[in-house]
Amino acid sequence: MVFSKILSVVVALGLIYFHIFANQPISSAIGFAILGYQVVIYLIPRLGSSFINIGLKGNDLSKPNRPLLPECMGAISAVVYLFTMFFFIPFIFIPIMVVNTSGGGNRDYEISNYNQQSNALFPHSKLIQYLSAVLCLESQILLGIADDLFDVKWRHKFFMPAIASIPLLIVYYIDFGVTSILVPSVIAKYLNQTTVDLGVFYYGYMAAIAIFCPNSINILAGVNGLEVGQSVVLALIFLINDFCYIFFSRFPSSISSHLFSVCLLIPFLGVSLGLLKFNWYPARVFVGDTYCYFAGMVFAVVGILGHFSKTLLLFFVPQIFNFIYSVPQLFHIVPCPRHRLPRFEEKSGLMYPSMAVLFADEGDETSGKFKSPKLKLLDPKGQLIQTILKSLSKLKLLKVVEVESVISSDDGSTKKVTLIKEINNLTLINLVLVIFGPLREDKLCITILGIQFSIGLLAIVCRHSIGHFLFENDNLWK
Amino acid sequence: MVFSKILSVVVALGLIYFHIFANQPISSAIGFAILGYQVVIYLIPRLGSSFINIGLKGNDLSKPNRPLLPECMGAISAVVYLFTMFFFIPFIFIPIMVVNTSGGGNRDYEISNYNQQSNALFPHSKLIQYLSAVLCLESQILLGIADDLFDVKWRHKFFMPAIASIPLLIVYYIDFGVTSILVPSVIAKYLNQTTVDLGVFYYGYMAAIAIFCPNSINILAGVNGLEVGQSVVLALIFLINDFCYIFFSRFPSSISSHLFSVCLLIPFLGVSLGLLKFNWYPARVFVGDTYCYFAGMVFAVVGILGHFSKTLLLFFVPQIFNFIYSVPQLFHIVPCPRHRLPRFEEKSGLMYPSMAVLFADEGDETSGKFKSPKLKLLDPKGQLIQTILKSLSKLKLLKVVEVESVISSDDGSTKKVTLIKEINNLTLINLVLVIFGPLREDKLCITILGIQFSIGLLAIVCRHSIGHFLFENDNLWK
Repeated sequence: MVFSKILSVVVALGLIYFHIFANQPISSAIGFAILGYQVVIYLIPRLGSSFINIGLKGNDLSKPNRPLLPECMGAISAVVYLFTMFFFIPFIFIPIMVVNTSGGGNRDYEISNYNQQSNALFPHSKLIQYLSAVLCLESQILLGIADDLFDVKWRHKFFMPAIASIPLLIVYYIDFGVTSILVPSVIAKYLNQTTVDLGVFYYGYMAAIAIFCPNSINILAGVNGLEVGQSVVLALIFLINDFCYIFFSRFPSSISSHLFSVCLLIPFLGVSLGLLKFNWYPARVFVGDTYCYFAGMVFAVVGILGHFSKTLLLFFVPQIFNFIYSVPQLFHIVPCPRHRLPRFEEKSGLMYPSMAVLFADEGDETSGKFKSPKLKLLDPKGQLIQTILKSLSKLKLLKVVEVESVISSDDGSTKKVTLIKEINNLTLINLVLVIFGPLREDKLCITILGIQFSIGLLAIVCRHSIGHFLFENDNLWK
Repeated sequence: MVFSKILSVVVALGLIYFHIFANQPISSAIGFAILGYQVVIYLIPRLGSSFINIGLKGNDLSKPNRPLLPECMGAISAVVYLFTMFFFIPFIFIPIMVVNTSGGGNRDYEISNYNQQSNALFPHSKLIQYLSAVLCLESQILLGIADDLFDVKWRHKFFMPAIASIPLLIVYYIDFGVTSILVPSVIAKYLNQTTVDLGVFYYGYMAAIAIFCPNSINILAGVNGLEVGQSVVLALIFLINDFCYIFFSRFPSSISSHLFSVCLLIPFLGVSLGLLKFNWYPARVFVGDTYCYFAGMVFAVVGILGHFSKTLLLFFVPQIFNFIYSVPQLFHIVPCPRHRLPRFEEKSGLMYPSMAVLFADEGDETSGKFKSPKLKLLDPKGQLIQTILKSLSKLKLLKVVEVESVISSDDGSTKKVTLIKEINNLTLINLVLVIFGPLREDKLCITILGIQFSIGLLAIVCRHSIGHFLFENDNLWK
């Protein structure tokens, strides 16, 4: 055990050392990822009790004896990531050697090697982007910790990532400022230009991306290992996409851009795997909102700085699906119980889809008394909802419980109808249980991650086939 | 009340707007300081109860009924400062307008206005320093919050600022890398060079500065308003020094360097005054370690980036004195009780110096039984300590309680001696009470701040008279 730890640290240092000779940033990125992983698995078991002591704790509801676990432990991964990224700086940016100044910290008559950047992986100007990325992540961690500590209201925490993205957006404005996007070639011919300048709206778009990624990871949660697992899968998909460019692209600037993304993602993978080790079924720690926000922000930052935010959305299809599928409950079109976790059955040890009850059971279904006042059975809206739910059920996208009811009209005649009384809670997790049947918690998690990974691979293929067709410019094949 | 708030926000926006026309960074710095102040005084009363709810609370021991106050509220000032500094960026750094690229976020065929920097306050390269400063402060806040939450051990928290300074030092290495310091002209003549390159030791020196400033503010604490008050006084002294350069220096680079310091310090003054409003006697909130560390790090960052860390130490003379004065207790040469706060007497409402008892009272002073086993009366060391304490007492630097004792030597003869049994706890706060007599808490705080401010002004005068003489290079008069 100790031996393997020492070995992995030695390997990590070797990889970092190799970088210095061969100028291979990926090797030192892997080295730092290993070091990050080791630090995380060293710290988490040692700090768990401290977290419980200050009230960061929760019960795991999907286990027989509902064990008490420390919450918010993902904050450790996040902070370790930050410091990993600090120590990574000297390896990917070469020092400007300021030989002499007039003293007092002035840069006046310096002799710098600005021009001898043959050895530098990234131009010095990219350091500004790098620092703004780390600042943005650090702000997100700070706000995430505030959220975990203070139990911020949902409508406030939804916008937290936009606040955290402020340093990123402001530095983007100062340092780069490109606010135009490529348009599909069909539209381009019509407009006589290949790009459209969105101006200030581009910043709104970037803020929206920053809001979307963290929140979409945060709502696909509730099963041991799923928050971290989906982040790991996303990181893998992003990396596959990056390596497509690094190995096959003929544009040096495109290669550099995706190398930058790789440098941010590989250490992220390291600290996330360290967390996953403790969060995997049966979980010994919970990750907390801090990690979800942090992980989502890593992807948002990579997408924004790499200028591939449209591709990013393609990789988030499972999360987007989960959000759209949840909309009827999130906006209270159908009743939404306080918890939508799948139901754990102690006898079988399996997870079952949890159900939401649409109307009360007290023998008066005929009067149209629903649990949710919005869902009146006899209203046209109520009937529309029943129709939609029935269709979803036929498409196997919903598990329903139906009851026979007798409806009496105003003219005294009665009609016998079949009504949907219960539906599964509208989350991707429950849907997977509806489709694949009851599963043990870890199998459930693996199934979701497998689906996510397959969709991600498909998205990469689509991106480089249909995308090429749509935009006539792929940075990869052209 | 509401009217004055609106008025101050309008004035702030006016000052910021004025900057855009007149390129006056100081005006927008004041504008942001006012905004920061308003946000802080808006948030603190609203968040106090949330802090108490999660256990961040403490009793004010120097008040009649020991009221319960929220702790760690300085974190709010610190976070507001961070976001103020983010919004400040576009005002002091002009955007590089990247007109077009090949798409995909590449900078390849851009047309930028790198050369048209007549309008820019600071060169673009200074943005890297600025971002590293903010990163360092944000890391310090993160570690400070961890400290306030988890009650970190003293020997660990002492080194926290060194960890927080990592981004600053690494970026300094990458971006600037000057590790030489000026030497006094007497030595310079002997060495035949005016500077000495400290190499890697310079980073150790900077880390030491980063450790020193936050910790020295953190140990000069315990009276309502003192932590924030001393930070405000330090900021004022730093600003007076900066304005000396801005108004009188003939070196443009030196003016720019101190303008940068002003841009960091004025918003800091704003958020600190907001906190002081609530922490001043009688305090409604405690500031917590987070604020002390954050404030100290602001000064460390300003000193390091402005390359005037030696002058910085001159401004910290009261804190250095407090540390040296505390050394005998910190290192347990004389006994150190758990709390060294001055003693509050409920009847008079005044603060008295608190005392440390050197040996037990049970009638056996003659046997040399001391409370602290290290302080054996009959040892040469014990006698030396008694001698030193007596001298300090004669210099009015110590309040002592003496007792008459009879010491029996080995040969049976007895000797009557006067022994010091109690001394005031060795902090600057207690010393001020020893010299000026019992004071009400706010008068005590004002006295200490007055002394600090006077010493600071004296330090500025010394810096520009003796410093000029020593180094033959002042960046100001020459």
